[in-house]
Amino acid sequence: MIFHGKHIQVTVFGQSHAPAIGAVIDGLPAGFRVDMPKLHDFLKRRAPGQGAYTTARKEPDIPEFLSGLTEDVTCGAPVCAVIRNRDTRSSDYAPFRDVPRPSHADWPAMVKYGEAYDIRGGGPFSGRLTAPLCIAGGIALQMLETRGILVGAYIRRIGEIEASGIPDPAEISPGDIARLLQNGFPVLNPEDKDALLAEIAGARNEQDSVGGIVECIATGLPAGIGGPFFEGLESALAAALFAIPAIKGVEFGDGFGAGRMRGSAHNDGYTVKDGKICTLTNHAGGIAGGITTGMPLILRTAFKPTPSIGKKQQSVNLRTMEPEELTIQGRHDPCIVPRAVPVVEAVTALVLLDQLTE
Amino acid sequence: MIFHGKHIQVTVFGQSHAPAIGAVIDGLPAGFRVDMPKLHDFLKRRAPGQGAYTTARKEPDIPEFLSGLTEDVTCGAPVCAVIRNRDTRSSDYAPFRDVPRPSHADWPAMVKYGEAYDIRGGGPFSGRLTAPLCIAGGIALQMLETRGILVGAYIRRIGEIEASGIPDPAEISPGDIARLLQNGFPVLNPEDKDALLAEIAGARNEQDSVGGIVECIATGLPAGIGGPFFEGLESALAAALFAIPAIKGVEFGDGFGAGRMRGSAHNDGYTVKDGKICTLTNHAGGIAGGITTGMPLILRTAFKPTPSIGKKQQSVNLRTMEPEELTIQGRHDPCIVPRAVPVVEAVTALVLLDQLTE
Amino acid sequence: MIFHGKHIQVTVFGQSHAPAIGAVIDGLPAGFRVDMPKLHDFLKRRAPGQGAYTTARKEPDIPEFLSGLTEDVTCGAPVCAVIRNRDTRSSDYAPFRDVPRPSHADWPAMVKYGEAYDIRGGGPFSGRLTAPLCIAGGIALQMLETRGILVGAYIRRIGEIEASGIPDPAEISPGDIARLLQNGFPVLNPEDKDALLAEIAGARNEQDSVGGIVECIATGLPAGIGGPFFEGLESALAAALFAIPAIKGVEFGDGFGAGRMRGSAHNDGYTVKDGKICTLTNHAGGIAGGITTGMPLILRTAFKPTPSIGKKQQSVNLRTMEPEELTIQGRHDPCIVPRAVPVVEAVTALVLLDQLTE
Amino acid sequence: MIFHGKHIQVTVFGQSHAPAIGAVIDGLPAGFRVDMPKLHDFLKRRAPGQGAYTTARKEPDIPEFLSGLTEDVTCGAPVCAVIRNRDTRSSDYAPFRDVPRPSHADWPAMVKYGEAYDIRGGGPFSGRLTAPLCIAGGIALQMLETRGILVGAYIRRIGEIEASGIPDPAEISPGDIARLLQNGFPVLNPEDKDALLAEIAGARNEQDSVGGIVECIATGLPAGIGGPFFEGLESALAAALFAIPAIKGVEFGDGFGAGRMRGSAHNDGYTVKDGKICTLTNHAGGIAGGITTGMPLILRTAFKPTPSIGKKQQSVNLRTMEPEELTIQGRHDPCIVPRAVPVVEAVTALVLLDQLTE
Repeated sequence: MIFHGKHIQVTVFGQSHAPAIGAVIDGLPAGFRVDMPKLHDFLKRRAPGQGAYTTARKEPDIPEFLSGLTEDVTCGAPVCAVIRNRDTRSSDYAPFRDVPRPSHADWPAMVKYGEAYDIRGGGPFSGRLTAPLCIAGGIALQMLETRGILVGAYIRRIGEIEASGIPDPAEISPGDIARLLQNGFPVLNPEDKDALLAEIAGARNEQDSVGGIVECIATGLPAGIGGPFFEGLESALAAALFAIPAIKGVEFGDGFGAGRMRGSAHNDGYTVKDGKICTLTNHAGGIAGGITTGMPLILRTAFKPTPSIGKKQQSVNLRTMEPEELTIQGRHDPCIVPRAVPVVEAVTALVLLDQLTE
Repeated sequence: MIFHGKHIQVTVFGQSHAPAIGAVIDGLPAGFRVDMPKLHDFLKRRAPGQGAYTTARKEPDIPEFLSGLTEDVTCGAPVCAVIRNRDTRSSDYAPFRDVPRPSHADWPAMVKYGEAYDIRGGGPFSGRLTAPLCIAGGIALQMLETRGILVGAYIRRIGEIEASGIPDPAEISPGDIARLLQNGFPVLNPEDKDALLAEIAGARNEQDSVGGIVECIATGLPAGIGGPFFEGLESALAAALFAIPAIKGVEFGDGFGAGRMRGSAHNDGYTVKDGKICTLTNHAGGIAGGITTGMPLILRTAFKPTPSIGKKQQSVNLRTMEPEELTIQGRHDPCIVPRAVPVVEAVTALVLLDQLTE
Repeated sequence: MIFHGKHIQVTVFGQSHAPAIGAVIDGLPAGFRVDMPKLHDFLKRRAPGQGAYTTARKEPDIPEFLSGLTEDVTCGAPVCAVIRNRDTRSSDYAPFRDVPRPSHADWPAMVKYGEAYDIRGGGPFSGRLTAPLCIAGGIALQMLETRGILVGAYIRRIGEIEASGIPDPAEISPGDIARLLQNGFPVLNPEDKDALLAEIAGARNEQDSVGGIVECIATGLPAGIGGPFFEGLESALAAALFAIPAIKGVEFGDGFGAGRMRGSAHNDGYTVKDGKICTLTNHAGGIAGGITTGMPLILRTAFKPTPSIGKKQQSVNLRTMEPEELTIQGRHDPCIVPRAVPVVEAVTALVLLDQLTE
Repeated sequence: MIFHGKHIQVTVFGQSHAPAIGAVIDGLPAGFRVDMPKLHDFLKRRAPGQGAYTTARKEPDIPEFLSGLTEDVTCGAPVCAVIRNRDTRSSDYAPFRDVPRPSHADWPAMVKYGEAYDIRGGGPFSGRLTAPLCIAGGIALQMLETRGILVGAYIRRIGEIEASGIPDPAEISPGDIARLLQNGFPVLNPEDKDALLAEIAGARNEQDSVGGIVECIATGLPAGIGGPFFEGLESALAAALFAIPAIKGVEFGDGFGAGRMRGSAHNDGYTVKDGKICTLTNHAGGIAGGITTGMPLILRTAFKPTPSIGKKQQSVNLRTMEPEELTIQGRHDPCIVPRAVPVVEAVTALVLLDQLTE
């Protein structure tokens, strides 16, 4: 479970119900002072137990730094951060070893790892392991910010409810991102919040879950980052983003919409602004030929609905090889999307920092 | 420009107007006899000069194998295949060094590489470099077939025209793929062909281009391939697919559609069929928790419209830093999608073979 | 600080005086029960505070496993083990920031990391970080043993005293290694022990230190592991072994001695024994063409004398850029070689397990 | 067969008797003009057919560049260079498939690759594949030279004859290297040449071969390159050097000699010279803690005697599994050492350039 960047490697470890989860972040530049309160605030955005749409599991998720920082300053050695698992109810998961939960990793993981697989809480597949990713990404976000690069994500859809996007992808100001982050709920337009929450509540009330779409933007990126074919920035970003549990689609700029378009509508003509080359439009989402154009980065990720639902589901008893109905108890998010927003920011920031370290 | 698989590495080299393009394929199992006529047939599907929708550039694209094969049998040493570039008209590209083509790599590549960048024919960013990818992938397809794994891709959309998809993603037979490949035009339903070609012709007639969507399926995959987080099969596939020029989106199973769904509709319940665990539906596209479920793999890729169009476009003269209108002459595909279909198959096959070599 | 194997990755973290040191071991097969008392015994062989030749620093060095094991059985998730640092006297190291210790990493590390470098106890360059390596390698040794592969190392030289080597490198039995490991002091011939210890005592009495040579052998390796050029087993082993602090040379089989030899003396002719191909001699040390021959692996590593000595040394004050004499206080090994023996075993085992996981 | 640097990757391909051998060099900076005559001169130093000590096989070994250069200037795309194999006598190698040559890769390679292994000329294990390495390294040498870094190697031993080394490892001037390279035979002291050649002639006259030691130095390296543990420069250099066929040992600075030394004799005290920190001595060979000290790099590599000798040898017939005597016909170097000198330079330069690209 290693993010193999060109300069930065992040080794994620832990299972949902192991003694701890954590990450080792290698390759960070030395001499950077981590703003700890800011990092804790960032981690809180992902943490459970915040509101109606999250699991009731409560985990303070305050990381302990075991190495790599001296008085919060990176010293060049790998940074290891650990979060202890406390509020675990492992017995909740005993039945799933015999009767795997649909659309969870339970069954494919048992095929891969055999009997030894640690199914409790989803083991190493748990969304809980995005917490260490957010530690790494939260530090990356701070490092990017000192270079004038801001990364922000927000909800574009939950189930049937679409939320506002960027009005003009060629015109995103750092202020747009700053405003976004000050918002209690990660949307571009605060007026969208209630309808999105209602969609989640609707799913929860029916013991169901619901999926969604998260959009992520970055401003301040220089042109020239990335490369041809397997060196492309889209490849690096997509590989990292698909590592986030529940993501089933990644697109850049107009993405799948580009499949409907004519070249004359999709091409981004060049112009000069303040003595700098830029594009008139930004259908490319800031990347052409796998390389940044200097325009804002725009990407979207699709999240499937949380597979843990209270409704009765069809499964199979692996001992008897007979069909068996399954009703999942326990504490689960009806919609992972709001908590996934900082994870998308974290992973995007990690990749950008890695590419920029060049 | 290296595909860094776990066991297989493919180093792609060449520029569109260099003496040659090619690939070195390392890590293939020894003792496999490549079916050369079959490989040539596969390469022909990607080659230009085939019909109304392709560039007039004619390249036989017959690879010469410099190493790694003895009488067409892999010997364990890296396989190097080379295709000479012949039908090049480099002078076509001289103007773009001053006035970069919108939505091409021209400008970002010049930022990255400086004056030395070989802009002729798009240099190393040219779609022409998908030919060596197809050599590697074409061999991978043959190797997978001996393991009972079939990979096939087809057009799902060109511009405004949608083409038929798989009726039931949980029920794809190897025969479906075999039939698909026998088809002269890569669609599931031959009746879709005319409308798709008309859409391309429409764009061409207006000196424009058009994008599309390619779907790829694979049958015969065992369960248990992939892993958690950065080891996920979706990450590996997406990273490789985004390396294909013009791809702007990748999704698995229901993909972005999953963002609209409830868990009760999206979850794939388990059942037993012929003594084997399988799922009742296949919204996951054959991958859950980053690991294959043993169900057919289903993925879609979005292609942007070819950026080279005959219409007048807005650019900037990099010498004068003044806006300048640009009209691209030369031979270009109005739609890359039909020729991209085997490239998607090739790249998918490469990743699958690599993961299965484990 | 990642060991990037083909299948196994070990991320080492920590500084000598950070809250902890540790390792994350990724890629181990699931379902293996770690023999914890045996692992602790192995770690004790490396631990300080054992005898006349080690530092007085006392660290129980009992690892806590944070993830990857359920009741001592690998579950497929990365194994994270942590050792808290307790007995640290950081103030000992304050002066070296201004006046770097000769032949330590102090000065080059400050050039690399700048002021932020954590110089206390040698930071991430400390020999103390071989403890997590031994956790990873100790597990690897156990896994290899179940495959019939034994790895053992022993002292061949300390300073002017040479110790016995294998009488016939073509004839090493597993019993030779078993006997070696039962020995309280890692030598092939117990009669060598006193002279070696006297050599260390001689150095200590003069407030000096002394270097040495460690030989490592492995039996039970199958033929066919490794590959040509950069895939050679010697490359993999040497890269990992040179990661051990203080190692300045690595050789296989006759090593540097082969430079004096004729081909007729060095070549290992083939014969058949018990129906198996083997070689009459083993000048190759079990590797030809980068690939195992099935004969015992034999390698040697050269350790420089511990750079921390009580004698007065010449250094420079980095503030004043004036020469300054330096006398190092504190607790240091006069000879690292005896404690380095299990580290060589650990690293060799890690590489072999990684290559064999193929 | 890929050199996986941090920034530079070199994919070597070919077998001794395949249509061609070659290399793809990825990650070189764009805009560098390769001095082709100088590169050809460098390759000539490795080429066969030069004198009494080399094989009679004649190969002009002039590379054709298929990509990555436009008028000899790197354009940022991967550089592919190919050398056609012409003067091959494959029938010479037919017998070795049944009766493997001692101390060659023949047998272990057949275990690894099976019947498909291309044994002709040693297949991908042939020393001939060091020619593409020299193309890559020859370009690296030129790039390093523009940064003021010179790399040079020379013979330190052939069989029983030792040749002169650097008088003071702390005092090596660029002029020393320049003089070395102007020398027709790679020794520091021209007076050593005759005795070394006589040693080779002695072996040849007895249809035997002889090994040797090559020393390599580099001046102009900045301090601060490398890192702790697996990031150490010694690991990177050793991994690459052991990829050279026939190398059985690698050591830095005093290397194995350090095992005999006291710390007080081995430590390199600091001093200030021309306002720069440097060391009084250079026992470390320019690397401490895995990081360059800014002092000259010094390393030595041990070459085993060429395994192909005319003398009768003991082998086994793999068909009958009976012992069989073998007499190798054909054209072989009695001593590979003189031709290996530029290979050691090439590989050292590649690693240094890669590390410095950071």
